[in-house]
Amino acid sequence: MSVPDAVLIGMRETNDLFCAKAIRSRDMNALDRVYTPDAHILPPGADMIQGIADIKSFWLNAITGLDVKDASLATVSAESAGDTVVEIGRAELTLAGGQIVPVKYVVHWKRHGEAWKWHTDIWNMNQ
Amino acid sequence: MSVPDAVLIGMRETNDLFCAKAIRSRDMNALDRVYTPDAHILPPGADMIQGIADIKSFWLNAITGLDVKDASLATVSAESAGDTVVEIGRAELTLAGGQIVPVKYVVHWKRHGEAWKWHTDIWNMNQ
Repeated sequence: MSVPDAVLIGMRETNDLFCAKAIRSRDMNALDRVYTPDAHILPPGADMIQGIADIKSFWLNAITGLDVKDASLATVSAESAGDTVVEIGRAELTLAGGQIVPVKYVVHWKRHGEAWKWHTDIWNMNQ
Repeated sequence: MSVPDAVLIGMRETNDLFCAKAIRSRDMNALDRVYTPDAHILPPGADMIQGIADIKSFWLNAITGLDVKDASLATVSAESAGDTVVEIGRAELTLAGGQIVPVKYVVHWKRHGEAWKWHTDIWNMNQ
């Protein structure tokens, strides 16, 4: 089922916040607004991680370790699933040297308080 | 929300079929019973693929290319999302030389006809 426009706008706000605050400003506290408290992430090259505290640690290490300077996220498809949304998307990470890393992802979105947040987040690379 | 036992049984049937028929017997036609016709897969090391015909081609190349002999799938969490299910799981692939490749995945399940099938399937490795 298609996702209502108001929900897509809420999802866009969360994605923009991730790129602007977590990636560009390296403000890991912004992730409280991006992930549900008990979210799972499934990163390539590491085991799955549950809970916002450990997710913040992962991203701080990943962003500083790879020296990620910017990110963009684009929805490929979004489907309503009950009161949640399943999204397939593409991301691009820009590293310090200007290298672009293409990423594809699936996010299971949940409404949490006033915001739409990532409850399950898994991604991988094309190469 | 938790997933009813009858649904979990249906999911297990599909997962068992994937391991027994698609992996161990290399019968790609079994994938008609595993994936919805318009499913997406998001494999590491390749771009996303949509549609059962291209998904069969992918798996035939992957299974023969890596010489995968066996697979097992284990659900870590499953949540009902409307009339669908979002599952986080772990897989192990056994290669011809006996090497075990640990994989983690997220599957968005849909009921299709009489069966529960993978509508979105994304995975990656821990290393």
